[in-house]
Amino acid sequence: MTSTATPQRSLTAIVLAAGKGTRMRSELPKVLHRLAGRSMLGHVLAAVQAAGAGRLAVVAEPGRADVAEEIARQAPSAEVFAQVERLGTAHAVLAAAAILESPDDDVVIAFGDTPLVTAETFLRLRAPLAAGAAVAVLAFDTANPAGYGRVLTEGARVLAIREEKDASATERAVTLCNAGLMALSGAHALALLRRIGNDNAAGEYYLPDAVALAVAEGLTVAVVPVEEAEAQGVNDRAQLAVAEAAIQGRLRRTAMLGGATLAAPETVFLSHDTVLGRDVTVEPNVVFGPGVTVADGCTVRAFSHLADTRLEAGARIGPFARLRGHAVMEAGAEIGNFVELKNAHLGPGAKAAHLTYLGDAEVGAKANIGAGTITCNYDGVFKHRTTIGAGAFIGSNSALVAPVTVGAGAYVASGSVITDSVPDGALAVARGRQAVKPERATRMRAALLAEKAARAKT
Amino acid sequence: MTSTATPQRSLTAIVLAAGKGTRMRSELPKVLHRLAGRSMLGHVLAAVQAAGAGRLAVVAEPGRADVAEEIARQAPSAEVFAQVERLGTAHAVLAAAAILESPDDDVVIAFGDTPLVTAETFLRLRAPLAAGAAVAVLAFDTANPAGYGRVLTEGARVLAIREEKDASATERAVTLCNAGLMALSGAHALALLRRIGNDNAAGEYYLPDAVALAVAEGLTVAVVPVEEAEAQGVNDRAQLAVAEAAIQGRLRRTAMLGGATLAAPETVFLSHDTVLGRDVTVEPNVVFGPGVTVADGCTVRAFSHLADTRLEAGARIGPFARLRGHAVMEAGAEIGNFVELKNAHLGPGAKAAHLTYLGDAEVGAKANIGAGTITCNYDGVFKHRTTIGAGAFIGSNSALVAPVTVGAGAYVASGSVITDSVPDGALAVARGRQAVKPERATRMRAALLAEKAARAKT
Amino acid sequence: MTSTATPQRSLTAIVLAAGKGTRMRSELPKVLHRLAGRSMLGHVLAAVQAAGAGRLAVVAEPGRADVAEEIARQAPSAEVFAQVERLGTAHAVLAAAAILESPDDDVVIAFGDTPLVTAETFLRLRAPLAAGAAVAVLAFDTANPAGYGRVLTEGARVLAIREEKDASATERAVTLCNAGLMALSGAHALALLRRIGNDNAAGEYYLPDAVALAVAEGLTVAVVPVEEAEAQGVNDRAQLAVAEAAIQGRLRRTAMLGGATLAAPETVFLSHDTVLGRDVTVEPNVVFGPGVTVADGCTVRAFSHLADTRLEAGARIGPFARLRGHAVMEAGAEIGNFVELKNAHLGPGAKAAHLTYLGDAEVGAKANIGAGTITCNYDGVFKHRTTIGAGAFIGSNSALVAPVTVGAGAYVASGSVITDSVPDGALAVARGRQAVKPERATRMRAALLAEKAARAKT
Repeated sequence: MTSTATPQRSLTAIVLAAGKGTRMRSELPKVLHRLAGRSMLGHVLAAVQAAGAGRLAVVAEPGRADVAEEIARQAPSAEVFAQVERLGTAHAVLAAAAILESPDDDVVIAFGDTPLVTAETFLRLRAPLAAGAAVAVLAFDTANPAGYGRVLTEGARVLAIREEKDASATERAVTLCNAGLMALSGAHALALLRRIGNDNAAGEYYLPDAVALAVAEGLTVAVVPVEEAEAQGVNDRAQLAVAEAAIQGRLRRTAMLGGATLAAPETVFLSHDTVLGRDVTVEPNVVFGPGVTVADGCTVRAFSHLADTRLEAGARIGPFARLRGHAVMEAGAEIGNFVELKNAHLGPGAKAAHLTYLGDAEVGAKANIGAGTITCNYDGVFKHRTTIGAGAFIGSNSALVAPVTVGAGAYVASGSVITDSVPDGALAVARGRQAVKPERATRMRAALLAEKAARAKT
Repeated sequence: MTSTATPQRSLTAIVLAAGKGTRMRSELPKVLHRLAGRSMLGHVLAAVQAAGAGRLAVVAEPGRADVAEEIARQAPSAEVFAQVERLGTAHAVLAAAAILESPDDDVVIAFGDTPLVTAETFLRLRAPLAAGAAVAVLAFDTANPAGYGRVLTEGARVLAIREEKDASATERAVTLCNAGLMALSGAHALALLRRIGNDNAAGEYYLPDAVALAVAEGLTVAVVPVEEAEAQGVNDRAQLAVAEAAIQGRLRRTAMLGGATLAAPETVFLSHDTVLGRDVTVEPNVVFGPGVTVADGCTVRAFSHLADTRLEAGARIGPFARLRGHAVMEAGAEIGNFVELKNAHLGPGAKAAHLTYLGDAEVGAKANIGAGTITCNYDGVFKHRTTIGAGAFIGSNSALVAPVTVGAGAYVASGSVITDSVPDGALAVARGRQAVKPERATRMRAALLAEKAARAKT
Repeated sequence: MTSTATPQRSLTAIVLAAGKGTRMRSELPKVLHRLAGRSMLGHVLAAVQAAGAGRLAVVAEPGRADVAEEIARQAPSAEVFAQVERLGTAHAVLAAAAILESPDDDVVIAFGDTPLVTAETFLRLRAPLAAGAAVAVLAFDTANPAGYGRVLTEGARVLAIREEKDASATERAVTLCNAGLMALSGAHALALLRRIGNDNAAGEYYLPDAVALAVAEGLTVAVVPVEEAEAQGVNDRAQLAVAEAAIQGRLRRTAMLGGATLAAPETVFLSHDTVLGRDVTVEPNVVFGPGVTVADGCTVRAFSHLADTRLEAGARIGPFARLRGHAVMEAGAEIGNFVELKNAHLGPGAKAAHLTYLGDAEVGAKANIGAGTITCNYDGVFKHRTTIGAGAFIGSNSALVAPVTVGAGAYVASGSVITDSVPDGALAVARGRQAVKPERATRMRAALLAEKAARAKT
C-alpha cells in the first residue's frame, strides 16, 4: 500500500519459517495460517519483495509439501533451506548460509510468524546499512517490556541488547525492546552469524548476540523504531485473530480514504488483494474473499460474500448475494437476495433479483432472470453451460437444463423446465396443466384432522 | 431522542452546506453522504428544527439539484442560498444575509458536515442568548488541541478565540477548543457578521472573528461546552465511518433502554427512524433500513435485512429474512430463512418458513406458504398482484403466476404452477405426472462415466 | 471451562432470583433474560453447582411458572422458596432459612442477576471458610467507587463494610468495593443472618450487615478479590449486552486457544455449550445457538446459523447455511449457500450446494442434492419423512413430496415433482413437456408495451 522508492542496493531476505507452532494446536504449519486470504508466510514474502529483495531464502521444516507449494506460489525464485535441528534463531539463519556466501549489499532477516511488518518498515530497517551501519535492529517501545530483550542505546546507535534475565534494575526500566528482525550488511553478515556461540543456559544460538559481537568489533549497530503492534508475532489463534484485525484495519482504511463508503468498516472483511473503486458503497457485513475487483459506483449490499469476482461500473449486488468462480457482472447488472453466481457472466443491465442459482452461465444484456430460476449445470459427472440471450425473460421458478440456449428476446413461461434450446423471440412453456378439484381441499383437511384426532386418542 | 422544551424565543438557523469535500473522493456532495439512512445534511436540518428553528437558510453550492431535493425533503420551508465564491465561513453565512434582515430573536450557525450535534446541544447553545449574551460559541475540551482555535475564557464568558498560529505558549496550553458552531442574538447578528474582515494570510472572512468584534463592543460572549466526539466534522470516509458508529451507538442505547434486547448491539445497524417496541429481541447481525417499525414482542433473528416494513405484535422473522417495499406482517405472522417480502401483506399468524419470494402479495390469516414458493409478479412489463385467502395452504415449490387468487382454505399441490384462480376450499394441481424408468439411472451413470474415462484418455 | 478441584467440604448455595428488574422494561423476569443461549439464572446455577453446591435454594418471586421451569431444567434438585415481601437482601436470604437449619459446611449467597461470576471465583470465595473464616466477602477494586459499599480491610481480613453515605472522607478514598456475594460458614450462617436488623433509613435488612455482626463477635471475615467486570450485575438491557459481550469473549478465547480459527472472533456468537474441535475454521459472522458440536477439521463459512446440530469430521457448511432441529452431517458432508437442514441427517460425503430445504430427511452417503431441491415434509397437519439413498442424484429444482423414498443410485430429473417412491437405480421424471411457440415472445412483448403506452396516455 505504501509506495516507497526501492534503494539501489541489492538485498537478500532470509525468512525463518520452520516454527513448530505447537500453541496453534493445528495440523497446518503455523506459517500457513491465513490472514486476509493469504498465508502469514505469503505476507512476509510479499513485504520483503516489495522492500527490494532480489534473492530470497526461506528456512523451513523439511518435508512439508504444503509449505514448499506456498513458497513457490508467493515467491517462485526463493530458495528453500531445511532446518533439521532446532538450535536457536542464529542457527536457523545459518541453514541458509549458502546464500550469504556471494552476498548482496544488504541482508534482512524476517520471521514467517511476524506477518504485520510492512515493506516500508523493511525499507527503514535497511536504511542504516546504506549509511554505514553493519547491523540494524528493529525495536518497539512498550508499556509492558517484561520478557523482552531491552535495547540499550545512545542516540540511534545500539550499545547492547540485554536479555531480561541479565538486566540490571536500571536496564529493566528501559522500555525499548528488541523486535527480533534484523538487517545486516552483506559484507559482515556471514562472519557475524558464524561467530555467534551457544554458551548459555539453553545451549542455543541466539541471533541478537550478533549485536554484541558487532559492537565489540567497533561496527555500528543502528536501531530502527517500529510500533509495538506491527512487531507482534503470532503464536496461538487468539494472536492470529489480533493480527487479522490489524490487517483488516489497514485494508479498510485504505479503501475508505480511496473513496469507498464502508458504513460499518469493522464488519467488512477484505482480502489482501481486494480492489474497491471510487464511490463504491459497501453496507455492513460483507466478506470479500481473494480475487475481487469492484469498479466505481458499484453497490455491495449487506450480507454479501464475494470471491474471484469482477463487478464493472455501477453493478449492484445483494443483500444476501454470493459470487464466486470467475463471476463477472458488467455495467449496471444487478443481483438481489439469495442469488448465487458461480462462473457466470452477466451482460450489461442484466438482472436476477431473487433466489436464483446461475452456474456456468452466460446471460445477455438486459436479460431478466425471474425469482427461483435454477441453471441445472451438473449431470452427476459433467458440468454444462447455459446461454441466455440479450433481452430474454426467464419466468420465475424455471429450471434451465444445461447444455441449453435461450435465444435473444425469448420468453420462458414461469415454472418451466427447459431442456431444449429456445429460438430468439420464441415463447417456451414446459409445465403441467392446472387441474382444479372443487371442495377437495376442505375434505382433505377434514380427513387429516380426523386422523390427527384419532391418533391423539390412542 | 432527548426531549427538551423549546424556548419561546424565535430562531433562525443557517446551515453551511457548500463544502467541496474533496477528501471524500466522491461524485456525491459531501453533505449528502448518509449516516443511519439519512444524509448528513438531513441530520443537521432535523436537529436545528427540533431545537426550534422556525426559519431555515441553507447555503449550498449552486446548481446541485440533488442537494436542493434533499433540502426540500428534509426541510420544505428552508430557503436555499448559493455560495458562489469560497471566501471563508463568515462570507458563506452572509450569502444568507437576506434572512437576517428581519431577524428572529436567535440565530444559530450550523455545518452540514458536523452531523452529530444534537438538538439538545443546539438548545444549550441558544440558552445564553436568552440570558443576554450576544454570541455563544460551542467548545470542547481535548487532550490534543493542536490545530484548533483556543477559547480563552473567564468563567462562562469568552474573552477571545485565539488561532493556534497567533497563540502564546500559555494560550497553547489551553485545551478548550472552538467547535465552530455559533449562536448570535438576532439583534446583533447581521451587524457583527458584516464587520468581519479578511485581513489575514488567506484573505478569508472567518466566522470566529465575530467573537473579538463582540467582546470589543462590550457585548457578552458565552461558551457552551460539548463533548469532543459530538463536535467532530466529517472530511473523509474514515471520519464518516466514525460518525456512523457514534450515531449507531446512540440509537442502539436508546433501543436497549426502551426494552429491546440487542444481544450484540455492535452488529445491529439501525436507521434514524427505526422504532423497536418493548420485549423485541434482535439477534446479532441485523440491518434496519429506513422506515421500519417493530411492535412489542417481535423477534428479529440473525442476518435479517428490513426496510420500509411494519411488524405487528409478536411477529417473527429470520434468520436470513429480507423485507422491503411496504412489507407488513400482522400479529404473530412468521417468515423464516431465505424468505423475501416485497410489498407483501401477511395476515395474522400467516407463515412462510423457507426459500420464498412473496412480491405484490396479500396473504390471509393463518395461510401456510410452503418452502420454495414464488409469486411470479412480473411479466417483463407490468407487475401483478397475488391474493391468497385465509387458511390456504400453498404446497412447496409452487409458482403462483399473478394476477391470480387462491381462495380461503384452498390447497395448492406441491410443485404446481398456478395460472388460474383457485376457488375457496378447492385443490389445485398443476404439475407433470411421474414416470419411472427402472435401471435407467444406473445405465445413464455408467455411460457418463465411460465418456469421462474416454475424455481422460484423449 | 476452568477446572478446579472441588473441596471436600459440603456446600449449600442460596441464589437470590426474585428481583423485579423494572429497568429491563420486560414482561420476562429479569433472571430469565438470556446470555449465550442460557438464562442468567441458568449461568449462576451452573457456576455454583460446578463450585460444589450439593444443595441449592433459589429465592424467587412467587407464582412465576417460567422461573420454576427454568430452575427445574438447570438444577432439578434445587428447592425454590418464595420471596413474598421485599425487605432487603438479608430478608430474602432468610426466605430460604429452612435449608440452613441442617447446615452444610459452607454456604454461598449468589445473585441471579450477577451472571458473570465463575465457578472458580465461587471456589475462591469458599476457600477462607476452610481456613477458619466465618464470613468471606467478594470485593473488587475500581477507579469509580462512588455508590458502592467500601470494604475496610487489614491484610486479608475485613474490618467493616462501610456504606458510602456513612463513610468518612478517608474511607471514601478506599477503592475496594463490596460485590455483594458472600460465603458463610454453615455453623454461623443462620444465627448471623437472623441477627441482622432493619434499623436504617429504608427499613431494610441488609446482607452486608452480617460482616459487622461477625467482626463484633470476634469472628474472622475474609475478603476475596474479583475483577470489577466479573462482579457486575445486570439491571437494564445495555448492561445485559455488556454481560453478553463478556461471556462471548470468554467462549471465543477458549475456542481459539483450543485450536479453532475464528478469523473475526468479535463476529462469531457462541452458546454456552458450543463445542468446536481442532482445526475448525469459522469465517466471520456466524451464530451458534445451543446444542452445537463441530468436530475436527470442519469449516463453517460466513453467515451461517446453527443450533441443535452435530457436524462430524471435515464437514463443510455455508456461506449462508442454516441448520437446526437435530441436524447431523457425517464426515465430509457439505451444504452450501441458502441451504437449510431441519431434522435432517446427511451421510458421509453427501452434498447440497445451493438453495435447498431438507426437512425431516435422511440422505445417504455421497448423494447429490441439486440446487433448489425442496422436501415437501408438511401436508398442513402432519410432518412426513423423505429418504434418499446412497449415491442418489436429485436433479435441480425438484420437489420430493414426503413420505417418499428415492432409492440408492436413483436419478431424479431436474424440475420433477416426486410423489411416488423411486426404486434403486431408477430414473424418475415428473415434469411437463416443453412446447415452443416461435415468435410468440416478440409478439407478447410488443402487445404488453403497446398496453403500457396506452395506459401512459390515459
